Amino acid sequence: MTRVGVLGATGYTGIELVRLLRKHPRVKITYLSSQSFAGKDLREVYPHTRHEDKLQPVDLDKVAEACDLVFTALPAGVSYEIGTVLAQKGLKVIDLGADFRLDNPSVYAKWYNKEIRYSDNLRRIYGLTELYREEIRNAKVVGNPGCYPTSVLLGLAPLLKSDYWNGTVVIVDAKSGVSGAGRTSKTEYAFSEINEAVKPYKVVSHRHRPEMEQELSKLANRPVRVVFTPQLVPMTRGILSSIYLSEVNASLKELLNLYKDFYRDEYFVHVLPEGAYPSTKWVQGSNHVFISLVLDERTGTLVILSAIDNLVKGASGQAVQNMNVLFGFDEREGLDVEPIYP
Amino acid sequence: MTRVGVLGATGYTGIELVRLLRKHPRVKITYLSSQSFAGKDLREVYPHTRHEDKLQPVDLDKVAEACDLVFTALPAGVSYEIGTVLAQKGLKVIDLGADFRLDNPSVYAKWYNKEIRYSDNLRRIYGLTELYREEIRNAKVVGNPGCYPTSVLLGLAPLLKSDYWNGTVVIVDAKSGVSGAGRTSKTEYAFSEINEAVKPYKVVSHRHRPEMEQELSKLANRPVRVVFTPQLVPMTRGILSSIYLSEVNASLKELLNLYKDFYRDEYFVHVLPEGAYPSTKWVQGSNHVFISLVLDERTGTLVILSAIDNLVKGASGQAVQNMNVLFGFDEREGLDVEPIYP
Amino acid sequence: MTRVGVLGATGYTGIELVRLLRKHPRVKITYLSSQSFAGKDLREVYPHTRHEDKLQPVDLDKVAEACDLVFTALPAGVSYEIGTVLAQKGLKVIDLGADFRLDNPSVYAKWYNKEIRYSDNLRRIYGLTELYREEIRNAKVVGNPGCYPTSVLLGLAPLLKSDYWNGTVVIVDAKSGVSGAGRTSKTEYAFSEINEAVKPYKVVSHRHRPEMEQELSKLANRPVRVVFTPQLVPMTRGILSSIYLSEVNASLKELLNLYKDFYRDEYFVHVLPEGAYPSTKWVQGSNHVFISLVLDERTGTLVILSAIDNLVKGASGQAVQNMNVLFGFDEREGLDVEPIYP
Amino acid sequence: MTRVGVLGATGYTGIELVRLLRKHPRVKITYLSSQSFAGKDLREVYPHTRHEDKLQPVDLDKVAEACDLVFTALPAGVSYEIGTVLAQKGLKVIDLGADFRLDNPSVYAKWYNKEIRYSDNLRRIYGLTELYREEIRNAKVVGNPGCYPTSVLLGLAPLLKSDYWNGTVVIVDAKSGVSGAGRTSKTEYAFSEINEAVKPYKVVSHRHRPEMEQELSKLANRPVRVVFTPQLVPMTRGILSSIYLSEVNASLKELLNLYKDFYRDEYFVHVLPEGAYPSTKWVQGSNHVFISLVLDERTGTLVILSAIDNLVKGASGQAVQNMNVLFGFDEREGLDVEPIYP
Repeated sequence: MTRVGVLGATGYTGIELVRLLRKHPRVKITYLSSQSFAGKDLREVYPHTRHEDKLQPVDLDKVAEACDLVFTALPAGVSYEIGTVLAQKGLKVIDLGADFRLDNPSVYAKWYNKEIRYSDNLRRIYGLTELYREEIRNAKVVGNPGCYPTSVLLGLAPLLKSDYWNGTVVIVDAKSGVSGAGRTSKTEYAFSEINEAVKPYKVVSHRHRPEMEQELSKLANRPVRVVFTPQLVPMTRGILSSIYLSEVNASLKELLNLYKDFYRDEYFVHVLPEGAYPSTKWVQGSNHVFISLVLDERTGTLVILSAIDNLVKGASGQAVQNMNVLFGFDEREGLDVEPIYP
Repeated sequence: MTRVGVLGATGYTGIELVRLLRKHPRVKITYLSSQSFAGKDLREVYPHTRHEDKLQPVDLDKVAEACDLVFTALPAGVSYEIGTVLAQKGLKVIDLGADFRLDNPSVYAKWYNKEIRYSDNLRRIYGLTELYREEIRNAKVVGNPGCYPTSVLLGLAPLLKSDYWNGTVVIVDAKSGVSGAGRTSKTEYAFSEINEAVKPYKVVSHRHRPEMEQELSKLANRPVRVVFTPQLVPMTRGILSSIYLSEVNASLKELLNLYKDFYRDEYFVHVLPEGAYPSTKWVQGSNHVFISLVLDERTGTLVILSAIDNLVKGASGQAVQNMNVLFGFDEREGLDVEPIYP
Repeated sequence: MTRVGVLGATGYTGIELVRLLRKHPRVKITYLSSQSFAGKDLREVYPHTRHEDKLQPVDLDKVAEACDLVFTALPAGVSYEIGTVLAQKGLKVIDLGADFRLDNPSVYAKWYNKEIRYSDNLRRIYGLTELYREEIRNAKVVGNPGCYPTSVLLGLAPLLKSDYWNGTVVIVDAKSGVSGAGRTSKTEYAFSEINEAVKPYKVVSHRHRPEMEQELSKLANRPVRVVFTPQLVPMTRGILSSIYLSEVNASLKELLNLYKDFYRDEYFVHVLPEGAYPSTKWVQGSNHVFISLVLDERTGTLVILSAIDNLVKGASGQAVQNMNVLFGFDEREGLDVEPIYP
Repeated sequence: MTRVGVLGATGYTGIELVRLLRKHPRVKITYLSSQSFAGKDLREVYPHTRHEDKLQPVDLDKVAEACDLVFTALPAGVSYEIGTVLAQKGLKVIDLGADFRLDNPSVYAKWYNKEIRYSDNLRRIYGLTELYREEIRNAKVVGNPGCYPTSVLLGLAPLLKSDYWNGTVVIVDAKSGVSGAGRTSKTEYAFSEINEAVKPYKVVSHRHRPEMEQELSKLANRPVRVVFTPQLVPMTRGILSSIYLSEVNASLKELLNLYKDFYRDEYFVHVLPEGAYPSTKWVQGSNHVFISLVLDERTGTLVILSAIDNLVKGASGQAVQNMNVLFGFDEREGLDVEPIYP
């Protein structure tokens, strides 16, 4: 059994990792840390887990001794420091924050107000599994993608690697459940504030924008810019991204074939037939992705709709998927959690 | 007191009209019709109204005798027939459906599968109050705008009447509360299906698209096309439309000034300061509209965000506003319903 | 115009008072205080209000000069101190907290951990309008009832003043929308924690229990005890209290007659016919109360169901109603806010 | 592999059975029927399932040939007829409706308006697994309990089998998510009607009352009556039952010991420590049950709080649990679905 630790186990991505890892046949959780609740049992914080595991503070020596792999779900900057140390001690690291996602430290510095410098032998890779599977196999550190970028990159990858579109600007209008904000005590995420509200925030200036642009530019092999409007909607889980591109040079049939080919062997990605549109409800609690394409022929505009569960494929599920790749497990192991419906 | 009737009083727009008209100091409800519940009291259908008013079938002679004005909230085609007859009998008619919105009968026929032919002396006008106030004063029949078009047209009118944008394609990504589907028994609108779901529908082919295009083209004085993605979100009331335009030739400051000037004297329309974004929660139950502008300078893309309550400014509230214009009342009368918060 | 102040204007009961008072034809808001936001404009905190009013710190001399009446929506103990001073300065005071509700200071001390001592000439009265209307006319200070007690006392008053029940124990199972917790930043009220959750809290030991027992014992003229289970449900507004009493000596018909007689002249209280049950949705945003009675003849158990909007009849609406009584206005003024539906 | 069929696969309990059975290591789904959608693929009705299984009409000969066990999720009366035939053909039958729950056909006739007569060799048993495990092993037909009764019986069983309470009347105030109404197109379950509503229905006269009374009376060995108030709350899944009993002759400590002993070996039932109360959110999507006890010593009233997921332990999960017992599998197989949180 591979020994895994979860640092930051009591946030929403942490507790979702615990849900998935407990059922994973190849791993054993050997370390759970929590800054706020160190010393308590997990079930005192989350009675639904029914587990007696002790929550510990982060002691790097003990972590290194107890684990083969750690998932870090920690504040910006902290993951970088802890992850770097643990990687040097020989552990595999999958970080669910942004500290290992951005290739350019100056971009990181601008958006996260912190300085980082990746050491040369870090073998860091951006963990969008479907796109970087081969590279992940040999990585030491995986920067697990953000929730919005996951939904957008999977929606755009086939097109940007093709010749059907030569543009440079993508419009992304994304709607997210509130769990994306994490387990927080801010008034703005209180039930009474969120219920009956659709609320845009950080329009065109959300931190996931540079992450998307980095990856889209690599996919297209030219600079691609994103006009990004994130919005909170009154639900707990799920992201629905609507993506708009103009001047697409292909028929809907060609585009559907392109996408179906691209994702033919992917277990978690599903391209819907013409006329069907995804719902976040179809992925609730699961690692699956539904994508549909709509071509407005009058204007040459392509609409791509992409639905994920922000806490699974958008965070902890993809982290487990990356672990499976890192350790040579079947990629689906521990991820056979079907969506609950309704 | 002006005598008003509501034909189709037990749908959601009908019952919202009743809420507003009861408190209106200048009018008296003299006729309430319902096909499904004729013969019953209104409070048997909606106990919260606490009113004993008898719901009647539609008898055009009785309606004509009892009313100076009727609001029609009836199925497509039915409003056209009834509204035409009542207008010829000298009543004012405000229709909350689509039967009097489209200038071109062949467009109506295409989207609604019915033939209509406006009589010459109908003096029909599209009832976006802020844009057609003067024409409404002399109308006989008002085609009250759809909910999505209201949010979009108010968001775009200042720009399309200006020289700051010369484009022809607008992208509209709109999120609506479920009450927009009316009081319906379809399984797809059941609580268990809607909760925890963001669900696009009729992407690029919703009936409100030709309505928007008609009005935007008139505003711009050139053909304008709309790429329109409507989406249901798990809330009861509210529409948030995100509107995207490329190649806008103005600074954010110029744009904000343009909008503030345009709506300077409008009681119900509010242009937010830079950096503030509207929420549907701010308009819940009220006739107000909040608009904000965000300019992505890197790409020249303008993002316009527009929030309304679909049942008030998007339907029954605007209908009352139009009635106020038609009869020379203060435009705010009966509409001093503040949003409930939270 | 009567000059009124709201101390604590940016909590949910404060902002609901502002909504109601703005439309009240007899009063003018002359003072708005906020500890957290003093110095800001109200619309910076709540853009939906669209008002430029300056939020001020509490300066008792200024308040006394500016106002004839103050509503206090302040923390426990603070209302007591401020309210006592302002009452001595000759202002009328309506407190929305618990500081003026309990007759027995030792009960207050036990449940609120603070010492209070009402001065002799305070003319303090418990502000359940329908029960204490006459006494309120001459009060200086009104202790506005809690939300749960309002729903329960109105549901029980006719029975407890009758001879139909001689018991001493009442079971109250109450479900509340989350706005009852106020505008708070606690994690437990975050959307993601509340959504899809029914959660009991403070079972049999909620602070509203002694308040209910005080008033029920006065109504019955004997000690009455309440087994009280409050529960949060995933909605913003509304309380539905289910009340159970055993050994009721009357037929349902007699009970319904008793209740209808008791509330015959009450504008805001509605006794439903046999077989109809209230919904919190019927009172959303309004000051109305719906009550129904169900008699389980097999067991002699009476079930009383009572629905209110916790922020209106359960707080700010009843406070305005009490103001109307205090100043001799029509009791309905400022309270003609119909529920929004759906 | 045991071959199982689901008759009525497209209702909510049917689709939940499919979710659980697909992951069950010992069974294979060999028959899926749907009256409304026969001839279609399952994924046309529920795209989230991603399965191509053909939905068939009910052909009893084919069912008998294809299956060792059938789950029937069919209308009242239909399950009785089909289940009886299939049992006679040698299949095991687990019915999720009420047709095999009631011992007394005249009680069934009264509440369901249909005549049934159990054949002598049916070996029918009421499928509350924790209470009837031994009997279920030898059953041919299992009447799977209703959702409300499951939550109530598990909450009361230890007490009613003890000497701590000698009463005959139990008050049950239960709150249910809307999925309990099934996949329905009735207007009253539309999102706009349910959102922001707590709504009692069928107070003291719900069909689950005789089912609870039958089982409680057997547990107590004396007639027990239930005053039952079911209520819909705005959530999809979950039941929270609050149960009230007067004159309980035990301390809280004794009661907690009683319950902990009773459920000591039960994997799915959890008795909470003093002062902790269950939430429906803790069981979302899982087969677990949380129970807590609160004793109001002043009045001698015991409050029992019991939370389940109505579609899992309250329906399809318990059906799988019963299948496991019937076929001698580990009772937990196929049921290791952890609750999703948040």
